[in-house]
Amino acid sequence: MEHGTLILRANWVLPMSHDPLPDGEVVVENGQIVAVRPRSDLSGAEVIEFGDAILMPGLINGHCHLEYTALRGRDDHTPFFEWIRALVALKAKCPPEIWLPSALLGAAELIASGVTFVSDNTDSGASAEALARAGLRGRVYQEVFGVEPEPDDAAILRTLGAKLDALRTTLQRYEATEHISLGIAPHAIYTVRDSLMRAVRQYAREQGLPLSIHAAESSEEVALARSGSGSFAEMFAERKINYLPPRVPPIEYLHNAGILAPDVQLVHATRAEPREQEMMARSGVSVAHCPRSNARLLTGVAPVYAMRRLGIPVVLGTDSAVSAGSLDIWDELRFAALAQRAVSYAAHPTWRDWIGMLTMEGAKAFGVDSQIGSLEAGKRADVIAVRTTRLAFSGMPDPYAALALVARSEDIAFTMCEGRVLYRDGQFTALDPVKLRTQLHELLHGIM
Amino acid sequence: MEHGTLILRANWVLPMSHDPLPDGEVVVENGQIVAVRPRSDLSGAEVIEFGDAILMPGLINGHCHLEYTALRGRDDHTPFFEWIRALVALKAKCPPEIWLPSALLGAAELIASGVTFVSDNTDSGASAEALARAGLRGRVYQEVFGVEPEPDDAAILRTLGAKLDALRTTLQRYEATEHISLGIAPHAIYTVRDSLMRAVRQYAREQGLPLSIHAAESSEEVALARSGSGSFAEMFAERKINYLPPRVPPIEYLHNAGILAPDVQLVHATRAEPREQEMMARSGVSVAHCPRSNARLLTGVAPVYAMRRLGIPVVLGTDSAVSAGSLDIWDELRFAALAQRAVSYAAHPTWRDWIGMLTMEGAKAFGVDSQIGSLEAGKRADVIAVRTTRLAFSGMPDPYAALALVARSEDIAFTMCEGRVLYRDGQFTALDPVKLRTQLHELLHGIM
Repeated sequence: MEHGTLILRANWVLPMSHDPLPDGEVVVENGQIVAVRPRSDLSGAEVIEFGDAILMPGLINGHCHLEYTALRGRDDHTPFFEWIRALVALKAKCPPEIWLPSALLGAAELIASGVTFVSDNTDSGASAEALARAGLRGRVYQEVFGVEPEPDDAAILRTLGAKLDALRTTLQRYEATEHISLGIAPHAIYTVRDSLMRAVRQYAREQGLPLSIHAAESSEEVALARSGSGSFAEMFAERKINYLPPRVPPIEYLHNAGILAPDVQLVHATRAEPREQEMMARSGVSVAHCPRSNARLLTGVAPVYAMRRLGIPVVLGTDSAVSAGSLDIWDELRFAALAQRAVSYAAHPTWRDWIGMLTMEGAKAFGVDSQIGSLEAGKRADVIAVRTTRLAFSGMPDPYAALALVARSEDIAFTMCEGRVLYRDGQFTALDPVKLRTQLHELLHGIM
Repeated sequence: MEHGTLILRANWVLPMSHDPLPDGEVVVENGQIVAVRPRSDLSGAEVIEFGDAILMPGLINGHCHLEYTALRGRDDHTPFFEWIRALVALKAKCPPEIWLPSALLGAAELIASGVTFVSDNTDSGASAEALARAGLRGRVYQEVFGVEPEPDDAAILRTLGAKLDALRTTLQRYEATEHISLGIAPHAIYTVRDSLMRAVRQYAREQGLPLSIHAAESSEEVALARSGSGSFAEMFAERKINYLPPRVPPIEYLHNAGILAPDVQLVHATRAEPREQEMMARSGVSVAHCPRSNARLLTGVAPVYAMRRLGIPVVLGTDSAVSAGSLDIWDELRFAALAQRAVSYAAHPTWRDWIGMLTMEGAKAFGVDSQIGSLEAGKRADVIAVRTTRLAFSGMPDPYAALALVARSEDIAFTMCEGRVLYRDGQFTALDPVKLRTQLHELLHGIM
């Protein structure tokens, strides 16, 4: 066998593109998967035998704000509007040096839960460097805000262009341009005025960059869009901001304004109404579903079952650690699966569907399914091993049910991205979370 | 210091009866807590220093079916009625020797998640011996069924009396009568006919035994009670069973029949209607809330917020591993907390309320709050230590939020019941789960 071949073996292989394979192996060469097959007796190559474990594709976290990881645990039970105002106030007090270590700490938490692709919305821009240094694959959406009269749209677009250039330079410096793509996140309809939303859409089309927009998340946002009332409207009145409500719900507004297209990710869509869901399906947008964040902030449960029936691609996202509490994508999956059953009284999505959203469907939604999302010869070697030795795995016959109902970060034995081992048996190869925690503790001393 | 003193120290002590105590210690002598105080520099006694950890009362699992632990993972997405019929069919195929090791395996899973008191409903009776051997505190409800014409009520009561005698003998043999109490579980309105339900109520009053009844769990059960229609009614028709529907919903029926009283635990109450909630509050019953089981079986979300506002005591239960997937009470807590926020749009119960339901309020609901439920001098020494070193605990300032949003079985460093260490750093002192799994694997070979 040629130099650099690695064989990963386990009692289960879940390719996602094919049926589960008991007693299988995944062969990796030069960052690529070259074979997925029944367990062989080949030796000579480097072999890692995981035994009671599931080998599967690296997971996709469809929406995150890594830079806020260090701000976790600040609120107890404030609803959405109060929560976001408190977060904005807290951000203003933080020294800018915290964003990179905070994002790196979040990256470590993702790697330890088996995530190898993350879609991250960033204000500071720190997440591009964090993903590159962590060895993760992903999408970085540069955030844009603008509701105050100044600066004007043109000035905001100039700043945006400069920020995107800086992100490109960072990715080039780390030779990460093939693994990490860029996008733009006009934050939400209550932080981006109509003219700016349209201008950003136009700019993104010219630049060939995709968009990510928080939409129809809370009742406050819907009230603002529908009738110019509620907490956001009161805040605008206080701040002497002239906000003209579109008089339709948020996603309908985005549709009418020509913003929606297949390159758009809508984050949350918790309150998407049936008519809006039809618009979403027709325009080809995808949805990032972050149910723990939605529950925490009292914004409800997104209509995942209905949206999927219409063919809208849904990916799972942890959102930030501040709202979700942890970046464990398995916690998100479990809450998502049970919450949908609880509110829709439907056994769909099935356990397998949910694992698909974390892998193959997620990869499709980000347009990277030719590279990742399944264990198949020719795909990039993003592979994880989930140990199934904990008591709660006893007697679980179906690997999809076992993963959906039981698996968690602590079961992750191995995380590989692009053939590079990022994490093995509790040890990180590129990151030092203990050092990051100490550094953040010092930087945040006296602030929180 | 006298012989047998043990001092447990940690960076946080959560007594539940008082405010959280940073840098505290709990002093244990002869199975009793003798002091809860700031960290001292006393030596001489045996000291366990947990450092970054939370010392708190042992947790209460308010509803379980330990004997079914080995049957976990059988279904994928069947709703309640099909699920319970499949479970009954599976039980009939199992050799009776499985119930004890299955219950012991479940007990191990509970101990590893920090539970020291469990309320368990048992058909085989195995859970009394399992709890006693595991060193757990708890309540064992002997299940009663009867909808077929034969045997008649008198015969069923005679069998029940014999089963209760056998449970008493078992508890005496293990000298566990002070830690484990008995009760009766007339299973549900669709498995216990009206005359038998009333006879069991009368018998329980005479014997001074409390009751546990599954009530208002599913839409199928409500349809049967309200109008004699639906899946259960069709099953009765097939089996030529003459079932007279009460023509009111299940809990209203139990109220009208004189079943409800402060010694009654209603399990689930998922579909409890406002009028039924009033009846529950007036009669003093408590509720065992098992939200993962409810979600899994497509039966909805119980009105916890509304019931608690009426003063109805609510405890959390995992239900069986077959429906919940795991017996990790922290998974139950997290899903409960987030699901209530998701459906009620209310920040109540708060994180602290939920931890209270697992401790002090739970103890009150079972009438054992003079002995357990808080860390106070004079109470029995049921104490656990939750390590807070995982990445996801980074920066969490509030111990209640940290526990509700992040803690899980893997963080449990130490479980003590009645001053006896049951579990420490992943090792069990009284149980051997690996041996139990092997034994069950052999017993169930060819069955599942």
